[in-house]
Amino acid sequence: MDARSPGSQAALREANRARLLAALRAGTARSQADLARATGLAPATVSNIVRQLEREGTVTTEESAGRRQVRLLPRTGVAASIDYGHRHVTVAIADDSPRILAERRLRLERHIDAREGLQVARRLLDLALEDASVELDDLVSIGMGLPAPIDRRTGRVGSPAILPGWRGVAVVELATEALGRPVAVDNDANLGALAEYRWGHGRHQEIESLVFIKLSEGVGAGLVIDGALFSGRDGTAGEIGHTTIDEHGAMCRCGNRGCLETLVSARAIVEALRPVLGEDREITLAEVAALAEEGDAACTRVLQDAGAQIGRSIASLCNLLNVQIVVIGGEMAQAGDLLLDAIRPVVHRFGIPSAVERLELVTTDLGARAPLLGGIALAFDLVQPR
Amino acid sequence: MDARSPGSQAALREANRARLLAALRAGTARSQADLARATGLAPATVSNIVRQLEREGTVTTEESAGRRQVRLLPRTGVAASIDYGHRHVTVAIADDSPRILAERRLRLERHIDAREGLQVARRLLDLALEDASVELDDLVSIGMGLPAPIDRRTGRVGSPAILPGWRGVAVVELATEALGRPVAVDNDANLGALAEYRWGHGRHQEIESLVFIKLSEGVGAGLVIDGALFSGRDGTAGEIGHTTIDEHGAMCRCGNRGCLETLVSARAIVEALRPVLGEDREITLAEVAALAEEGDAACTRVLQDAGAQIGRSIASLCNLLNVQIVVIGGEMAQAGDLLLDAIRPVVHRFGIPSAVERLELVTTDLGARAPLLGGIALAFDLVQPR
Repeated sequence: MDARSPGSQAALREANRARLLAALRAGTARSQADLARATGLAPATVSNIVRQLEREGTVTTEESAGRRQVRLLPRTGVAASIDYGHRHVTVAIADDSPRILAERRLRLERHIDAREGLQVARRLLDLALEDASVELDDLVSIGMGLPAPIDRRTGRVGSPAILPGWRGVAVVELATEALGRPVAVDNDANLGALAEYRWGHGRHQEIESLVFIKLSEGVGAGLVIDGALFSGRDGTAGEIGHTTIDEHGAMCRCGNRGCLETLVSARAIVEALRPVLGEDREITLAEVAALAEEGDAACTRVLQDAGAQIGRSIASLCNLLNVQIVVIGGEMAQAGDLLLDAIRPVVHRFGIPSAVERLELVTTDLGARAPLLGGIALAFDLVQPR
Repeated sequence: MDARSPGSQAALREANRARLLAALRAGTARSQADLARATGLAPATVSNIVRQLEREGTVTTEESAGRRQVRLLPRTGVAASIDYGHRHVTVAIADDSPRILAERRLRLERHIDAREGLQVARRLLDLALEDASVELDDLVSIGMGLPAPIDRRTGRVGSPAILPGWRGVAVVELATEALGRPVAVDNDANLGALAEYRWGHGRHQEIESLVFIKLSEGVGAGLVIDGALFSGRDGTAGEIGHTTIDEHGAMCRCGNRGCLETLVSARAIVEALRPVLGEDREITLAEVAALAEEGDAACTRVLQDAGAQIGRSIASLCNLLNVQIVVIGGEMAQAGDLLLDAIRPVVHRFGIPSAVERLELVTTDLGARAPLLGGIALAFDLVQPR
């Protein structure tokens, strides 16, 4: 709690609700009297909150031995998630386990604008809903991930948008209108961090700080600090891809030179391999990783070099934040140990010992789906906050 | 509140106490019944906490019109703060306004060890206590700042210690024994951030994220995130001085090459000026700043160049954390606008627009005293947490 904000009535209600839910999260049914004792809240306060939670379907209550027993329900219903990449869009329908009921993916033209991108997502969503035998109106809500910072103040896509057609778009408004259900939007790396924190490497009780780094066409990070997603004043924290590595390096799409992204993005990797693979060969990061696995020297080298650059940025990040876990996600994570073995020594070389010696450095548990699953978490959080 | 920690009884008591204090912080006296309504806590819980707070001298209560009115008292008593620099130690006695009752400063030999350093502080503390007419036993406690990361897990000074004689020392234990009063210890940049947040640029209600960067012989940062000091898993967050700027650059005392500190520390600045000022001239950062102010071209240039390097690190930090305020402190802050004018364009050149366009970049309000005052805040927090 901010020591200087005495708290509005709304903030207090929110805090009371959160602590009651925390007391319930232990799992067993508890009586209202127990909850009052455990939280220090007045019985009338407990009773009010429980009534509200029951109306929402968050808890169930039952009279037993003259006492009202309260039990937390799993979050009910299904949500949809829409994850935009640079050249694809993926839609999933899932419950809060998270169990995926349907998933659809489509290639996107690089330069379609937000309106067109949302039309594609709407069609894909309809197909996925059909696959899952779920009606649009039955979705609790829709979570959406974009490979761009979302300015929380304006609700708009901040520059530098990787998707040029989305820059400056009031995305929540537009998406809600296009999709016909409430939509919550966040940066895809933030959603990856949220999914890893809930369901992946961060799900253990003792984990309070976690960074998820998405390495794909773009490079971005999502930060969990003190048990909550931290997105900064304007919602744009985590832009690790635009750390300057080489002041005189190649131009970056953000307008600077020598950003980390110019050295380790999918495009940079593929370009570095051109002299070996030939001008015409189209190759994805996943294919580069597979070739390296098979022993291809050039693919191995290029991923190791990328790992070393990423390692430097992770070292700086750890020096600054001293986090517990760094999770590598995105397409490049498919290189697995090859990548981690390149990153790890550099982190220890460039990080100060006390900041990195206990760092857990891992690849994502959730495969390429981390941001997509984060969208499911976001969708449930929007309507059934816990 | 961490959504997954159901909270021990101790944590709940702590949280209840914090929200009651938050409700009281509005300033006017409030009845216990009002407090119960405002916080949602049970009247018995409120009454218990108030009794405890009254015993501690945190609040006063008064019967009026049949209701018990509760009023928050200013934190009483005086605390001491001990701030170690690389070559000096400063001791202050102050109340919680903070009004400084006495201040003493002494030059330190560079290589004295922790035990000797504490003996010097003890003598200085005795002199300051005499100046202020305060008895040692009347100090609420002592806050201490060191220019080194403090490993929260072990309570020891982490490497790289700028003070070699302190490396690995169990500092709280040793200092408590040497000084004869409870001692709380933190990194000096963290204390600078704490002081700026309480009494400086961060004192306004709307400020929730602030970074204090200390530029002196060492370079370090203290982070306030979501209204609280963030020091990472092991207590060593904020080590911005060891960000690698030039992989092939000069050796840093931390064992890496080309850290920010090798380029902008007091020593680096003075070394850069050697060809101009001559081999034998001893000069401090403060003197360099003063000469620059008078129009000295070399001093101006060297501070501008340092500002540009610092600007790059601030840009990376803002890309990552999207904070509201960056406060420049330490000796170099005396260069004021000259330094800010060099930093600002670089931050905007290397930072992504959404992360830096609303950044407030300022020099400290509290002069060279920021970490020293932070020690006073820390000392009060130790015994009268609010």
